[in-house]
This record gives sequence, structure tokens and C-alpha cells, in this order.
Amino acid sequence: MDYEFLISDLNHCKTRKAIGTDKGLAKIGDGIVNLAYSVAKSIFLTKNNLNENIIRTGKKVSKKILEIALKNANMKNFAKNRADAHDLADTVEALIAYVWFSDKMTLKEIINFLVENLSGDLNDRNEEIKNATIAFTDLLIYIKQFLPEK
Amino acid sequence: MDYEFLISDLNHCKTRKAIGTDKGLAKIGDGIVNLAYSVAKSIFLTKNNLNENIIRTGKKVSKKILEIALKNANMKNFAKNRADAHDLADTVEALIAYVWFSDKMTLKEIINFLVENLSGDLNDRNEEIKNATIAFTDLLIYIKQFLPEK
Repeated sequence: MDYEFLISDLNHCKTRKAIGTDKGLAKIGDGIVNLAYSVAKSIFLTKNNLNENIIRTGKKVSKKILEIALKNANMKNFAKNRADAHDLADTVEALIAYVWFSDKMTLKEIINFLVENLSGDLNDRNEEIKNATIAFTDLLIYIKQFLPEK
Repeated sequence: MDYEFLISDLNHCKTRKAIGTDKGLAKIGDGIVNLAYSVAKSIFLTKNNLNENIIRTGKKVSKKILEIALKNANMKNFAKNRADAHDLADTVEALIAYVWFSDKMTLKEIINFLVENLSGDLNDRNEEIKNATIAFTDLLIYIKQFLPEK
């Protein structure tokens, strides 16, 4: 089944803000972001620990990480005017859901992209925040090509 | 990237209980279950409303639905002994994550399976609980073939 019909209204008069401020898209994107990061972190920790332990973790991405990633990627113009931190995080989630629904990136492609762009010691909370922010910034810059220019 | 290495410890001495009681698997499965149900519900509501509205919704599946689905599928023997409702729901999530990691079902296949097995008026809360329970029961019965027999 092709899911693009679920965004056909947004594609009708496709604008950056219509996509970036869609609440339903943000809710579904929240699921995509958290699942993708959980699996990416599990892969990264499993591949980068000395004693070859297998690590499976379910990890919610903090809104702060997504908010800063959107700013760092210079993509605040996808969010609503006078957006607060929560709105900016929602915009990131909506954009990622849009790209997934558009079939531009599969879930596994999003996971693999995050794994490749993660680094450092993710068991250290501060380092994790810094490096997860970088990975999500990179992801946003990458998906910009799939989003409308205005 | 193939993710099966993330369950290689479980495949080493593969038992029903080892998979069904794995906490990390349950956490990742929680994300898979909620995302899959959100998209499945969005598709179902979009295809079954008279005025052709597009509906995107992010919906957490209640633990109660998963608990009863596991019982209805006669798969309580995948959970720990004296499991409470929360443990049983965790087992469902772990089993679905295991099947996803094993590459037996993709996320889209899980979504499509749920869509095909949903019915009724999902805007009515009681009817939704009843019919979502049926869809998850069907999914569990279907994935049983991919799980160890003992």
C-alpha cells in the first residue's frame, strides 16, 4: 500500500508552513522520530562497546534536541510564527513524517542515517544531547531537498 | 543495514520466554506498535469516511488492548509467570519488535495487516477498543509462525 494519499491535501497547495505546522503529521512523526532514534542508539551502542554486549534501548528524543536541530539547520521558517520550543520540535516531527509518507526515506533509511551521523559516548547524557542534536541537524539538512521551497 | 545482529543473543538459545520478557525489545516494540497503529488508524479513518477528509492521527494503543489480545491469541506462555496486565502488554510489544528485527514483517506490512483487520466505527471509543483488540489478536496469531515453539 502506498501511503501518499494520506498527505494529498498537503501536496495540493504545498507550502513549507502547511507541512511544518500540521498537528496530525507531528503526532505520527513523534512516533517515527522516537522509534528511529531508539533503534539507531541501540545499533550505535551495540557496535561501539568493547565487550560486544548487545544493547536494545527505547529512548524518547527530548523536544530540546529537536528544537535546536531545527534552528541549527536554519529551518525555523517551516514552523509557525512566534513558535515556542514545543512548536519547533513538533515541526521537526511533522517534516520527518512528511518525508516518510512521501516515500523519500523509509524508516530503515532514517535509522541508518542517524547511526552514520551519531558519534561520541552516548552513555554520557550531556554528550548524548550534543551528538543527537548534530545527527538530527544533519537529517534535517538532508531532507530539505524533499520539502517545498516556499 | 540488516538489524538481525541486535537479536543475536536471543537467537542463540531462542525460547519463547526469553523473547517475550526482554525489556529492551518491549521498549522498541512499544514504538513500533504505537506508530503502526497510528498510521493504520489514519488510513482506516481516511478510507472510511463519507466526506473524503484526510485524517492523520497519532494514537497510543492502550495496554489493556494488548493484554487482552495476547490472552485471546492463547499466547500467554510467551510472558513471564504471574504476569500482570502491564507485563502482558510488554510481551506483545517484545514479540512484535522481534518479528520486525528478524525481518519477517516490515513496518508497512504490520500497518497493512492492521488496516485489513480493523473494522467498525473507530471514532466510538468502545468500538475502537473492541476492534483494535481483534486486529492485534489477529496479528499475534499471524506472527506465531515466526516465533519459537518452546
